[in-house]
Amino acid sequence: MESFFAAARQDARTRDAADPLATMRHKFLIADGTVNLDGNSLGSMPRAVVSRLDQTLGKEWSEGLIRSWGGADWFRLPEIVGDRIAPLIGAGPGEVVVGDSTSVNLFKCMAAALALRPDRRVLLIQEDNFPTDNYIAQGLAALVPGVELRAVKTGDAFLAAIDDKVAALILSHVHYRSAKIEDMAAINARAAQAGALTIWDLSHSTGAVRVDLNGSGADFAVGCSYKYLNGGPGAPAFCWTAARHVAQVRQPLSGWMGHRAPFAFDFDYRPADGMRRFVCGTPQILSLSALDEALKLWAEVDLDALFAKSRAMTDLFIALVEKSCAEFGLRLDTPRDPMTRGSHVVFGYAHGLSVVRAMAAEGIIGDFRAPDAMRFGFAPLYIRFADVVRAAETLHRILATRGWDRAEFRGDSVVT
Amino acid sequence: MESFFAAARQDARTRDAADPLATMRHKFLIADGTVNLDGNSLGSMPRAVVSRLDQTLGKEWSEGLIRSWGGADWFRLPEIVGDRIAPLIGAGPGEVVVGDSTSVNLFKCMAAALALRPDRRVLLIQEDNFPTDNYIAQGLAALVPGVELRAVKTGDAFLAAIDDKVAALILSHVHYRSAKIEDMAAINARAAQAGALTIWDLSHSTGAVRVDLNGSGADFAVGCSYKYLNGGPGAPAFCWTAARHVAQVRQPLSGWMGHRAPFAFDFDYRPADGMRRFVCGTPQILSLSALDEALKLWAEVDLDALFAKSRAMTDLFIALVEKSCAEFGLRLDTPRDPMTRGSHVVFGYAHGLSVVRAMAAEGIIGDFRAPDAMRFGFAPLYIRFADVVRAAETLHRILATRGWDRAEFRGDSVVT
Repeated sequence: MESFFAAARQDARTRDAADPLATMRHKFLIADGTVNLDGNSLGSMPRAVVSRLDQTLGKEWSEGLIRSWGGADWFRLPEIVGDRIAPLIGAGPGEVVVGDSTSVNLFKCMAAALALRPDRRVLLIQEDNFPTDNYIAQGLAALVPGVELRAVKTGDAFLAAIDDKVAALILSHVHYRSAKIEDMAAINARAAQAGALTIWDLSHSTGAVRVDLNGSGADFAVGCSYKYLNGGPGAPAFCWTAARHVAQVRQPLSGWMGHRAPFAFDFDYRPADGMRRFVCGTPQILSLSALDEALKLWAEVDLDALFAKSRAMTDLFIALVEKSCAEFGLRLDTPRDPMTRGSHVVFGYAHGLSVVRAMAAEGIIGDFRAPDAMRFGFAPLYIRFADVVRAAETLHRILATRGWDRAEFRGDSVVT
Repeated sequence: MESFFAAARQDARTRDAADPLATMRHKFLIADGTVNLDGNSLGSMPRAVVSRLDQTLGKEWSEGLIRSWGGADWFRLPEIVGDRIAPLIGAGPGEVVVGDSTSVNLFKCMAAALALRPDRRVLLIQEDNFPTDNYIAQGLAALVPGVELRAVKTGDAFLAAIDDKVAALILSHVHYRSAKIEDMAAINARAAQAGALTIWDLSHSTGAVRVDLNGSGADFAVGCSYKYLNGGPGAPAFCWTAARHVAQVRQPLSGWMGHRAPFAFDFDYRPADGMRRFVCGTPQILSLSALDEALKLWAEVDLDALFAKSRAMTDLFIALVEKSCAEFGLRLDTPRDPMTRGSHVVFGYAHGLSVVRAMAAEGIIGDFRAPDAMRFGFAPLYIRFADVVRAAETLHRILATRGWDRAEFRGDSVVT
């Protein structure tokens, strides 16, 4: 395998030298020897965040005090940050707001969709979706009498389950585990035909694969910003509603920051024009400022090049691992067709937890999902082809040289 | 007035020298010449927050990456931070969790209270409460068929409105405008007698006046942490539920971070034991870390001394203003009895907006509430008696020397 990986390293050097995104990596603070292959859980830190937070703390907060709500544009940050995300998901200016968590925004969208379809009470959910999406649907169904959940795995059965009782369907665009990309346009079309609304979770899509909310006829979308958007741990989530719905749409988390005139202190809630009505309470400005700064670097990114690099890196990783590790019986759990695959790759292996831990000990940070899934994410902004080769080579060496002992298995994991 | 204020300044120096909290001020970064009398909207910045965020960014995020959910205790921060707040509100360890906004936590508590009283559908709300409390109640009532709001000003009529249809009452402990302190024990007792639950908004109480949730028999409480707790702009809110309810209580924002086993990726939501079930989505760690650091200084604070200083400062401000400004017809909108007054003082004055702006231009940062309320907050951790005198003296000088023109009035304001 030495000559195989030597050739791969040589090839990777050539590809990295030709990578139009190569300079983006310098904008991140990356510890020596560490390869973050869990950027689909927590993206690496853009260096500019440090000076931005210095300013937020030292100038805006401690000197500006309360005046910074206007003077430092804190009040408008949910919309300013939303406008930075919009081009990454096929949305227009003013169509995206940022704040709260993905879970909270899912609740807003599900309730808003039910209100738009008052004669329908079924929420169709993706049975194996990332858990919080379904937990929130369960919370809403327990709160509002008559709301019913229908859980189906995506595929033909899911499409067949869209009938005239379904108010909305809630599903992930890129699956958190398999990385499979759903056909957004086809599902939106099928839903529209049946009179149902779509709510897309873009957490594993945004900044990794092409998303075209407006072009595909979607109704609602949410997503997190701490994965490929590199907004920092637990960075605030985003929320989008199709322009055709916004004027009618109401969401129940009607906090004062989404009011039309928040400082009039009216008794009655009157929603702001546009997506501002999806803002709820006072936004967490430190986290939101970090995200605002992290998103600035996307203005320089050629998205076509980014999506192509994602496909090329995951293609390369699959090819290297399958060729070098054939004898170990790994099971590829991710689509082979790069056009239906997100930016991470999953291999199943009985001793996966031990392997992921051994790789982490050598600086290759991957992720494990019970019972046996090793998940490796390839964030195109800062992962190099050379990192892909190093990851595959490390995986091969570990598999080839370690004996695995069942006693090493423990039930713990790391965070999505 | 020169000798009057000279004597006041001399007296203030004596009191500041004897202040047991005097050293706390050095823990804050306070711009030269600025007096933050809007610390009841946005508290000043504890210096330690800067180094804490340096660590969160430079070590925990950029080096630790996803591993910091365990290694830096990010996962447990909602409870760790809650335990720091608990002693300030008469709660015990494990009874408080932190995350989301006050608005979102109000929604959780209102829905949870309705679920505990399934045969009652009325939420009794304080008619002149801070608007977001009532906006959230309106959002919940619009979402859940049958839920009805009853809006009454606090006082005898409010108590009389607690009948056997009321599931819960939602009110502020210290009123955001008048600073009036409600009698928590009496209202809890009256509610309990009628079988209703209480939900207290402690935003203007916490860190300023005594709160005894357990001792007074309260059921639920929420509050914000960016006022007297100095957690930073939009810092995450806290939520408390009486221990007697926790095991039965369910809240509808059932995100994965409140699940009993969030990394088991079960389909069904099962709430965590204890208050962890009030955590929803992934917490905003940068904001939460800043708050965690800001709260550490409370471990050294003698709360009795703090509450006494609050009363002494507001007493002093009222006395100085009333004596020096008698001719200008200011109207005191805050209770005179310091035991029923929070840590801010409101004077009504027709040209209040212009006065607040003129004071701000001289570094005295107050707050204005339409139509005519000038609001001045006295945060006992970093405001000195000398600052109180300077504020009163500046107010007097501005009133005595400026001619006010109606054309100066504009409808804008600053944030609560």
